Amino acid sequence: MGAIKFKIEKKLKGQLGRAGILETPHGKIETPAFVVVGTNATIKSVNVEQVKECGTQVVLGNTYHLYLQPGDRLVKDAGGLHKFMNWHGPTMTDSGGFQVFSLGVAYKKGITKFAKTEDLHDDTNEKEENKISPQLAVIDEEGVTFKSHRDGSMHRFTPERSIEIQHNIGADMIFAFDECTSPSAPLQYQKEAMDRTHRWAKRSLDYHKSQPHSEKQALFGIVQGGRHEDLRKISAKQIGGMDFDGFGIGGSFNKEDMGTAVKWVNEILPEEKPRHLLGIGEPTDLWEGVENGVDLFDCVLPTRLARNGSIYTKDGRVGITNARFTKDFSPIEKDCGCYTCQNYSRAYISHLFRSDEMLAGTLGSIHNIYFIVNLVKTARQGILDGNFRELKEAFLSRFRPNTA
Amino acid sequence: MGAIKFKIEKKLKGQLGRAGILETPHGKIETPAFVVVGTNATIKSVNVEQVKECGTQVVLGNTYHLYLQPGDRLVKDAGGLHKFMNWHGPTMTDSGGFQVFSLGVAYKKGITKFAKTEDLHDDTNEKEENKISPQLAVIDEEGVTFKSHRDGSMHRFTPERSIEIQHNIGADMIFAFDECTSPSAPLQYQKEAMDRTHRWAKRSLDYHKSQPHSEKQALFGIVQGGRHEDLRKISAKQIGGMDFDGFGIGGSFNKEDMGTAVKWVNEILPEEKPRHLLGIGEPTDLWEGVENGVDLFDCVLPTRLARNGSIYTKDGRVGITNARFTKDFSPIEKDCGCYTCQNYSRAYISHLFRSDEMLAGTLGSIHNIYFIVNLVKTARQGILDGNFRELKEAFLSRFRPNTA
Repeated sequence: MGAIKFKIEKKLKGQLGRAGILETPHGKIETPAFVVVGTNATIKSVNVEQVKECGTQVVLGNTYHLYLQPGDRLVKDAGGLHKFMNWHGPTMTDSGGFQVFSLGVAYKKGITKFAKTEDLHDDTNEKEENKISPQLAVIDEEGVTFKSHRDGSMHRFTPERSIEIQHNIGADMIFAFDECTSPSAPLQYQKEAMDRTHRWAKRSLDYHKSQPHSEKQALFGIVQGGRHEDLRKISAKQIGGMDFDGFGIGGSFNKEDMGTAVKWVNEILPEEKPRHLLGIGEPTDLWEGVENGVDLFDCVLPTRLARNGSIYTKDGRVGITNARFTKDFSPIEKDCGCYTCQNYSRAYISHLFRSDEMLAGTLGSIHNIYFIVNLVKTARQGILDGNFRELKEAFLSRFRPNTA
Repeated sequence: MGAIKFKIEKKLKGQLGRAGILETPHGKIETPAFVVVGTNATIKSVNVEQVKECGTQVVLGNTYHLYLQPGDRLVKDAGGLHKFMNWHGPTMTDSGGFQVFSLGVAYKKGITKFAKTEDLHDDTNEKEENKISPQLAVIDEEGVTFKSHRDGSMHRFTPERSIEIQHNIGADMIFAFDECTSPSAPLQYQKEAMDRTHRWAKRSLDYHKSQPHSEKQALFGIVQGGRHEDLRKISAKQIGGMDFDGFGIGGSFNKEDMGTAVKWVNEILPEEKPRHLLGIGEPTDLWEGVENGVDLFDCVLPTRLARNGSIYTKDGRVGITNARFTKDFSPIEKDCGCYTCQNYSRAYISHLFRSDEMLAGTLGSIHNIYFIVNLVKTARQGILDGNFRELKEAFLSRFRPNTA
């Protein structure tokens, strides 16, 4: 019984990190794993074969986006997300909560994963994001009323509605409806929002259990509480005490607190269930997360950065349109096994960006996805082989964050 | 000796059409064949594996574009066009003449393949086309001075320079520098331009022969003369009498004259050399061209139309964003063997277009390239099997031109 099975293979000595196997109705995931974001039931600028070839094990669609277009009923009628988008491996959807607050109602009002950073949890076109002017959230105890960022039409999500929509979409792993606050929100509001998220978690779970889908789809509860230790611990205890199949950790904290906050939470969450850190992240965050017991990560950065010409290398990110690459006929990284590095030069990719060619974003995204997916695979292997710390230190001593 | 070999396998009884094999330094082409246009050394929105999987045998890059960005010297330093773009099959470049007149100097001044239609010979981004305001062409006996459509900088092409640039780019088949006139230009000007094109053809050939490249690259001369029977025949005789490896037919005529004009030319051109109809076409034009002895066609329509959501079917083109496809879970065409039709529904592709997703153009382009490439393959098979006329009639009785 239950839609997923999770087995821990090996633990990081004296720490929370672990390597495991997560069995889903659409195949196994070796954890820790990076989840590639396919907001609109497609990973921007790459096709599913390319995504798979990068080593991707699991893909996440955004409930808010799919609800608005093409509509969750249509995805259901198409035979579900897997069939609709031709991705036959494991899938997830988020609850829509984050986008309701960030895109739907309070866009650019400061609801972000990290204070002062962008939304990294759904891969929305920049031009689309700006269609509708921001509106205040209309939150009540029952749910949230919001305006579509596409056409300004009014919509309402409740915990029950979010789960119903996610049942229609049909991903293997789905999330309870939560309120995601800004890390800079006042403490009192953080607490209110967290308490509401706990009540919504119970309602999400009750609705899910009342439906036959609970055998085919796993429900993850979301821990909130911002950057406050007491709130995080209360939330981990409350959510961790409910009968969820796994847990999400809402990534609302300052970047420098991330590892610590994840540790507070994962020390409390039941060890035997998988944990997903939502909307994170950057290579340095991934090492921190794995070390502190995170099993799954999702983030739009690999694809979004690539479309802007920012490419991961072991030394940090580089802007591929930089003049020094114009006549550089070597691959992005000589020892990289990705399709892009096997077949194309920096000069060619730089030319594609200068010519505004779509293949530019494709080749960049393939490399960045491969880089990030395999970084998490390397961290996993480090846990299994007992050299996690050495691998982490070797990576971090070379990788310069905040480049290009 | 000579860079290519052409062998006619079978002729259409009592007509000019023929099926053949064209051997190039990068492989054989079964003719008649459709050449897919990769203007900037990439086929827009698809990668080379996808292009190949569609049945594509040969790809054409645009000299004008590659000269401006990344520069022909850079392509040479990269190891040539094949290596630079990772397409290891046969390639062509045009002479740059058409773009010098249409994009570089007299954009939207009426220099088009067919009167009142768009430029179909290079796949330029719409936004790029409009960067620089149109300028009059500055043509003299020696060559053409033109303004870059990218940044307004001044450049000069002569026949010798065009060939030198094409030698640097390194395609298997290249074209003599020509002046492409509008079909609506006055007869006197058509004649002057044609005579100049003949002088430029000889200079192109002389320069080509003086270089060691002539053993590795085949040079095609271009027949001009607009829609005028006398001019076309003079041009075919003049150009056909020079020692070119093959011939291009400049596609400057009215749509309804196309078959007739091609016939005038191909009755005169030496039978044993391949003929390429430049910048054509539409399915109906392709049948006409094959019947009248054309061996190669290139056109941007399959990819350009696809990016705008216009998809070829055996009944004509359809706008895939049409409301009737929103909930249509069948493929574009049930009996189509392309990747798109094997894996995706009309509803999904329609959703991708509505979501402004890059995969929309990719899936559409794959289907359209497959459709057109295989239409020409079918026509070829019809010549070999002796049922060309039946196949043509069956196709044309069903296919409605000018739809969607």
